[in-house]
Amino acid sequence: MKILITGGGGFLGSRLARTLRARGELGGKAITGITLLDGAFPPDTSGFNAVKGDLADSATLQKVVEPETAAVFHLAAVVSGAAEADFDLGMRVNLEGTRLLLETLRRQCARPPRVVFTSSVAAFGGELPDVLDDATTPRPQTSYGAQKVIGEYLLADFSRKGFMDGRALRLPTIVVRAGRPNAAASSFASGIIREPLNGELCECAVSADTGVWLLSPRRVVEAFVHAHELPAGAWGTNRVVNLPGITATVAEMLAALKRVAGAKVVGHVVWKPDERIQAIVRTWPVRFRTPRALQMGFKPDPDVESVIRDYIADESIRI
Amino acid sequence: MKILITGGGGFLGSRLARTLRARGELGGKAITGITLLDGAFPPDTSGFNAVKGDLADSATLQKVVEPETAAVFHLAAVVSGAAEADFDLGMRVNLEGTRLLLETLRRQCARPPRVVFTSSVAAFGGELPDVLDDATTPRPQTSYGAQKVIGEYLLADFSRKGFMDGRALRLPTIVVRAGRPNAAASSFASGIIREPLNGELCECAVSADTGVWLLSPRRVVEAFVHAHELPAGAWGTNRVVNLPGITATVAEMLAALKRVAGAKVVGHVVWKPDERIQAIVRTWPVRFRTPRALQMGFKPDPDVESVIRDYIADESIRI
Repeated sequence: MKILITGGGGFLGSRLARTLRARGELGGKAITGITLLDGAFPPDTSGFNAVKGDLADSATLQKVVEPETAAVFHLAAVVSGAAEADFDLGMRVNLEGTRLLLETLRRQCARPPRVVFTSSVAAFGGELPDVLDDATTPRPQTSYGAQKVIGEYLLADFSRKGFMDGRALRLPTIVVRAGRPNAAASSFASGIIREPLNGELCECAVSADTGVWLLSPRRVVEAFVHAHELPAGAWGTNRVVNLPGITATVAEMLAALKRVAGAKVVGHVVWKPDERIQAIVRTWPVRFRTPRALQMGFKPDPDVESVIRDYIADESIRI
Repeated sequence: MKILITGGGGFLGSRLARTLRARGELGGKAITGITLLDGAFPPDTSGFNAVKGDLADSATLQKVVEPETAAVFHLAAVVSGAAEADFDLGMRVNLEGTRLLLETLRRQCARPPRVVFTSSVAAFGGELPDVLDDATTPRPQTSYGAQKVIGEYLLADFSRKGFMDGRALRLPTIVVRAGRPNAAASSFASGIIREPLNGELCECAVSADTGVWLLSPRRVVEAFVHAHELPAGAWGTNRVVNLPGITATVAEMLAALKRVAGAKVVGHVVWKPDERIQAIVRTWPVRFRTPRALQMGFKPDPDVESVIRDYIADESIRI
C-alpha cells in the first residue's frame, strides 16, 4: 500500500513516517511507498518520497496523490498562534488546503482511501463545563480551532458519501515536542521541559497555574496508527474522537521535571507573561472524560514523569 | 441603512423583502435600499434592487455588497435534495458561496454588518436523543446539513474576529411554502397542504407517521427580523440558535387540514413512497426543547391548524 503524510516533514509527521518505515506494514498490508508533503524536511529523508510544496496548491496535491494511495495521514496545518495572527493564511491552508486534499483524494484514488485527520482540543472553547466529554459541542474561540472543526465536518461528509473512510482525532497538546519553539500558542508546554533539559533558558509565556491537557509524541503516533487500523464499524456515523490525555498544570510539569532532572535544570525557566498567548490558551479545555476513545483502544500516558522520561530516552538526552 | 438579501427572489427571501419594505426601518434605522440577489425573481420587484446572479461568483458579490451594507440576510442555498444529488453543486454554492459572501462583506463593508444566516434542522442526524436540545451536537447526515454547519462555524469565527456580527438560525421545516414543489427533501410537508387546497393531486413521498418539526413562513420572517434586532450581547460567544417549532406527523397535518378545509380536500393526497426522500427525511430530528430561543424571544406557531389558516389568509385561498 502507498501512504501519504501531509506535514510529513514536521515533528509528528517525521516521527510517524519513521515509525511506518520501521513497521513495514499497516493494517496487515505491506507498505510499498511513503510520500511526505511539507514545506521543509529534516536532512535525512532516505526511504521516503519527500515532496516540498504547499497543501493549498492543486498541482502539488495532484503530484502527491497517486491512484494507489490507500492511507493518508493529514497532519499539515498552520498552527494556532499563526492562524490567529494571519487569518487569511489559516483559512487558505487549514480550510481550503484540507478541502482541496479531500477533493484530490476523491478524484485521484483508485479506491476510497483511509484518511486520518489531526483535529485538536482547540475545537473547544467558550462557556465550557469543568470536565468535557464526548457529548460536548465544539465552540472554538480561535480561527485554528474553527478550521479544524470545519475539517472534521468535511471529512465526515466525504466519508458518508463513500469518497473515503475518514477518522478525525482531536489531539491534546503534544508534550514534549523536540526541536525549536514554534508559533503554536501551546509552544510553552514543551518549552518548559525541553529548553531546561538542553541547559537553555525558557521564557514561559503563561502563568504557573495554567492547565494543559496533554499527550506524548509516542502515544500520539500510536494513536495515528491505531486510528487507521480500526475497522470502519468502530467509527460508525461519528468520524471524530477526543483522544485520551492527562491533565497537568505548568507548576505540576515543573515539579515532575525537578523529580526527574533536579532543581538546577528547573531553574532555567523564567516567567515572561504574554497576554496574547495566555488569552488563546485560556480558551482551551483542561479536563476531559474520554470513554469513547478508551473503549476504542486509544491510550493516554500514565503520568507527566513518564512523559519526560520518554522524551529523554527518545532524544538521547544526558542528564 | 442598506440591506442585502441573498436568495431574495425565493419564497422566504421575497416575503422578508416585502416585510422590510413595508416596515421601512430595521432596528430603529430607516431602510435606504434593499438589494436582492438570486437566480430568478417574481414578476414584481418594484422598490428593490434585484440582481440576477450566482452566490459563488466573486464579481456578482462585489456588485451587491456596498460599503453602506449594514444588514445582510443570507438565505441563498442549494436545497437538501439537490445538494445530496449533486455534491459538487452543493459544495460550490453552500460552502464556497457562503465563504465568499463573508469574505466580500469583510472587505467591502465600511463597518462590520449584522449578518443573519439561515441554517437548518438538517444540521442534526445520526444517533439522536428522542428530544434534542441546545446542547445537542450537530452530526449532519446530508451534505446540505454539513454545509450549513460549516457555514455556522465560519460565521462564528468571522464574528469573533470582529469582521461582522453574525447570527445563525437553525430553521425547522417551513410549512406551508407557497408556489410549486421544489427539490428540497422536505417539499412534501408543504405539498400535502398546498396542493389539496389548490384542488390539485399531491403525491406524498413519505409515510403517514413521518414526523416534522415545523415553523410557518409568518413566524420565520418574524424570526429573521428579531434575530437582526437582538443586541450582540444576547448572542455572546454562541452565534447559533435552534428556532422553536411544533412537532406534527403527516397524519396529524392531514387531520388538521380536514378540520380546516374538509374531507374532500384531504382526498387529494395519494401515497407514493420515495425511498430516497424518506431516507433523507428519516435522518432529521422531530422533537426539540428550545429554551435558549424562547428566552431570546423567538416564537413558535400555536398549532398546525393556525399554520394552515395563516397560509389560507396569506395566499387569499378560497375554501
